[in-house]
Amino acid sequence: MKIVNMKVHSIAIADPPLRSSYGLHAPYALRSVLEIESEDGIVGIAETYGGDAPAQALEGLRTRVIGADAYKLTGELAHLVEGQGAGFARSQTYLVPGENPLDTATRTYAAIETACLDLIGKSVGKPICDLIGGRVRDRVPFSAYAFYKHAGGDGERNDVRADEYGEVMTPEALSREVKQMIGHYGFGSVKLKGGVLEPKLEIETIKRLRSELGPEVPLRIDPNCAWATNTSVVVGKELSEELSHGGYLEDPTSTLEGMSEVRKQLLAAGVTTPLASNVAITSFADLPQSVGLDSVQIVLCDSHYWGGMRQVQHLATLCRVFNLGLSMHSNSHLGVSLMAMAHVAAATPHLTYSCDTHYPWQSEVDEIIVGGRVPVTDGCVTIPDKPGLGVELDYDQLARGRERYSRLTYRKRDDEAEMQKHVDPTWKRILPRW
Amino acid sequence: MKIVNMKVHSIAIADPPLRSSYGLHAPYALRSVLEIESEDGIVGIAETYGGDAPAQALEGLRTRVIGADAYKLTGELAHLVEGQGAGFARSQTYLVPGENPLDTATRTYAAIETACLDLIGKSVGKPICDLIGGRVRDRVPFSAYAFYKHAGGDGERNDVRADEYGEVMTPEALSREVKQMIGHYGFGSVKLKGGVLEPKLEIETIKRLRSELGPEVPLRIDPNCAWATNTSVVVGKELSEELSHGGYLEDPTSTLEGMSEVRKQLLAAGVTTPLASNVAITSFADLPQSVGLDSVQIVLCDSHYWGGMRQVQHLATLCRVFNLGLSMHSNSHLGVSLMAMAHVAAATPHLTYSCDTHYPWQSEVDEIIVGGRVPVTDGCVTIPDKPGLGVELDYDQLARGRERYSRLTYRKRDDEAEMQKHVDPTWKRILPRW
Repeated sequence: MKIVNMKVHSIAIADPPLRSSYGLHAPYALRSVLEIESEDGIVGIAETYGGDAPAQALEGLRTRVIGADAYKLTGELAHLVEGQGAGFARSQTYLVPGENPLDTATRTYAAIETACLDLIGKSVGKPICDLIGGRVRDRVPFSAYAFYKHAGGDGERNDVRADEYGEVMTPEALSREVKQMIGHYGFGSVKLKGGVLEPKLEIETIKRLRSELGPEVPLRIDPNCAWATNTSVVVGKELSEELSHGGYLEDPTSTLEGMSEVRKQLLAAGVTTPLASNVAITSFADLPQSVGLDSVQIVLCDSHYWGGMRQVQHLATLCRVFNLGLSMHSNSHLGVSLMAMAHVAAATPHLTYSCDTHYPWQSEVDEIIVGGRVPVTDGCVTIPDKPGLGVELDYDQLARGRERYSRLTYRKRDDEAEMQKHVDPTWKRILPRW
Repeated sequence: MKIVNMKVHSIAIADPPLRSSYGLHAPYALRSVLEIESEDGIVGIAETYGGDAPAQALEGLRTRVIGADAYKLTGELAHLVEGQGAGFARSQTYLVPGENPLDTATRTYAAIETACLDLIGKSVGKPICDLIGGRVRDRVPFSAYAFYKHAGGDGERNDVRADEYGEVMTPEALSREVKQMIGHYGFGSVKLKGGVLEPKLEIETIKRLRSELGPEVPLRIDPNCAWATNTSVVVGKELSEELSHGGYLEDPTSTLEGMSEVRKQLLAAGVTTPLASNVAITSFADLPQSVGLDSVQIVLCDSHYWGGMRQVQHLATLCRVFNLGLSMHSNSHLGVSLMAMAHVAAATPHLTYSCDTHYPWQSEVDEIIVGGRVPVTDGCVTIPDKPGLGVELDYDQLARGRERYSRLTYRKRDDEAEMQKHVDPTWKRILPRW
């Protein structure tokens, strides 16, 4: 199955003004869409991080991709995920996902692997999950992903959708947002992006969610390292009950040493809430130290930057063996990424938590797949009975995304600059903030 | 790709009177051959451990296999490699491979996975290594596997081939055997199955090999736990120079604690020879303790009992992450197993040593694949440009193997009983022997 053509599309998609400890989401999130075409005219696709750098990294492999056999290409490029560059620990404490130069190789490989698997799946008429070991679940559960946020659709953000959630900067509003989101999608678990309000307000938010959603809905909170170890311990103790029932405390503080200290103090206080991470742990190279220090009990995988679907499966086994849980990280994305996440989740037995997804924050008008958005029902994405990823590109919509990208003045994600521009000109990301 | 038929063939193949710390190989080794057939008449095959128990375990899954989709079956049976039964540590200190009831589930799964992959590969016209991630090497290096042995072809073993190596019970004879084997197959590294003669004679054997083969050929010795820790340390020190240059000391003593003690004492003496294992470590569940104790520096994988090819790939990543080497274990086998070993090795980047193989000890007259034995040149098996495993069953030869099996009085491997029968009626496996 010789690859004869490759296209990399840089697109921009509307993104609401979501807040996190990194700052503020820009009006548009950037994505890259990869197409590879075989000599018999079948097209395999993938979606990954956007902006000029990820697109250039993909372009940089053009001569390796064109002429390659889609079945063999992942082996030929294995050095990108197995070699030196893939082996370094590379905490992204100060880097938003997709902007970490140390995972360029694994991110690039992942997109190529997904496109090859989509191409192969479409050629043999089989879903990707059944090419990589076989599905262990048909329906992949996702978590609601709640953000504190500003209202959209005003001022410079004229062309950004005035989303249905409006301003959400209080515990009350956040709780309303979550119920609204559950109403639309049926999510059975909730993640709160924290690190935005004073810890006591975020504690209040979680307590309100527990009270309003009932005792059984798993809750997780992720302040992206905004807290000092002592603050993390205080929050962990305060939310001991609320984060049980399948929840977790994600990246309360930075570094594996800091997480280990939080864990130690929480256990000493009788709080067994597991700590999750996609910041202190972003690569295989972080795992031995984490295991040694008991820093992290749940790893958040992401096939986009861990080196693809098979690497996520390897990671899952490693987590099972070392008695770690496995959840899934997400970034602003469209339906191609959502389906890739669903397929790898479907074929990964030891995925022990529902996956994160930003998908509710993107909009129908920006979706680039034929037929519109992927259905999320009862909080789950169902693996469709279609080959490959199960989705095809809508080329008009893709062109629309490219056109928007071409008009943008920025080419990478910079939540700090955005925060300075719209909220506070003096704002800096300070860790720990509290 | 619906599976409509399944056959399990129990066969017996001539095996020379090889010695190890387990005892003596019987005149025939037992193998099971699995065939699954799709509704369009394509047949996928696998070879695994033999005897009645492994065959019955495969038969026990007949109702799950018949009617299943070959792409989905491995997912449907994932509990066999991911579930509780697969999670237990299961040292086989006292059990020869294939006779350990605790790995029945993973052994059975592995055979089914290989047969499914062969079926899929044959259906889409692609070699298995390119279905499971893509080859990183086309030629898979194997090691010479030297045994002390009795002469074949006499007495009760009339129908056993009088092999070309004759009796090999001294350092001189062993060295001759190795050179003979290298002459036939071109192996670039050598493993000595030890634990048979007095340690001083085995030391002498290795020193003789080093002296006769030159300074660069990697040498490994595997006494299968025959030595006490202090003996292991003495041998490790004595062979410090000879086992360097890419060699290793395999399972000198039993248990992870014992191996850890040997490692500690060797390091204290400045001996950095890595310890390898397929006895103290036989499953994922053994790894955390081994990592914690630094018991084993090189894991010997075996897709036959680790749960198949993808589990071996998971293991390889785990080894890379925890800075362990990876080599491959072997048992008496024919060409179907050899090709399965070659395919998984080809698609496993972090395979850091040449693989073991018993293949030279089996004979052309017993080979069950069309066209006769798999070529081993310059010590390597080359991945053929053929779909699936790249081999097909010779049904006349298979029938011959079945007929031999039906005539045998034994249905499982018992090297101790064989030793008592032919060498010493009082012989018992005693650990440590020295």
